[in-house]
Amino acid sequence: MNAIEELADSFSRLPGIGKKSAMRISYHLLNEDPAFLSQFARELTTLHQRIKRCSVCGAYTETDPCAICSDLLRDRSLLCVVEQPQDVMTIDASHEFRGLFHVLGGVIAPLEGIGPTQLSIGRLVERVKEGEIKEVIIATNPTVEGDTTALYIQRILAPTGVTVSRLASGLPVGGDLEYADKLTLARSFRGRITY
Amino acid sequence: MNAIEELADSFSRLPGIGKKSAMRISYHLLNEDPAFLSQFARELTTLHQRIKRCSVCGAYTETDPCAICSDLLRDRSLLCVVEQPQDVMTIDASHEFRGLFHVLGGVIAPLEGIGPTQLSIGRLVERVKEGEIKEVIIATNPTVEGDTTALYIQRILAPTGVTVSRLASGLPVGGDLEYADKLTLARSFRGRITY
Repeated sequence: MNAIEELADSFSRLPGIGKKSAMRISYHLLNEDPAFLSQFARELTTLHQRIKRCSVCGAYTETDPCAICSDLLRDRSLLCVVEQPQDVMTIDASHEFRGLFHVLGGVIAPLEGIGPTQLSIGRLVERVKEGEIKEVIIATNPTVEGDTTALYIQRILAPTGVTVSRLASGLPVGGDLEYADKLTLARSFRGRITY
Repeated sequence: MNAIEELADSFSRLPGIGKKSAMRISYHLLNEDPAFLSQFARELTTLHQRIKRCSVCGAYTETDPCAICSDLLRDRSLLCVVEQPQDVMTIDASHEFRGLFHVLGGVIAPLEGIGPTQLSIGRLVERVKEGEIKEVIIATNPTVEGDTTALYIQRILAPTGVTVSRLASGLPVGGDLEYADKLTLARSFRGRITY
């Protein structure tokens, strides 16, 4: 295996890149500026050193606590609970939510041996008990595991008296009824809004 | 911009990788083994040092002359002329051709200011004049520029008496007539084979 094939092999280990694209990218890099290749390489090797998990919310961050947790202008009475660290960036980029986050680190999945204790649910309860939070918005994915986890959190938070809500699920905006699957359609009926 | 975004930015500079895939890949790499990241980075930084162009045929190689040019079992009477160094690997991987190669380094494209002198055509004529080659198979792409270049090479090699041929072009195997474009269809008519 030569240097081009070795590099292509590494690229094809990445999600969404097949063998052909990997070769195409490697050939492309042969004609790229060596300075770009060095910078790219440096970004790869320093990624793990630079990116940590925030000790408060669990999001990926370079500073601890993260920029969101330490932003005093955000609404500290709202807490959005997500599955993965990358979900924080997705929601924050939408500018729809100006509260704080809490990363569970996964969902309850008994078949994979993941129970509530493997998730950061105990820490979530602690944060709620500190008293500043008025509403917990559960933004786990609309899957069986995401729904189960949401239900579990709703029950475990019930004694604290905090409001617990769940992101609406239904037809995606700009989508077409024709292409909606049965489960999504069923959800959009159950969650319909009366004018 | 944090480390994840910087890395995603580099990935999105590569062909076929959009902003979303680039972010997805970067998050994926956060959960990858740091040893893989170091190896990947090393492959990127050493690429230009390890890969040279073969001084005989112009293909990408780690040794000079390349493995194909120095393989004594190959048919030295056949020479396949291609546009780009990567075309050598594509054709060689098909195992359809066991002769030698010659990389032009492009095609004649007057609009982009590329004439025959910018391509390795003089060197091609020299190689043919050495006398060992019996047939030159032109494998430039079936585009206007590729055809022009093929025609030019055929004319410039005519005085040497060597056989000059061109790869057949027509319907792709496994393709469907319905999806064939007009030009491809026209070619497949002109190049039809009588039983």
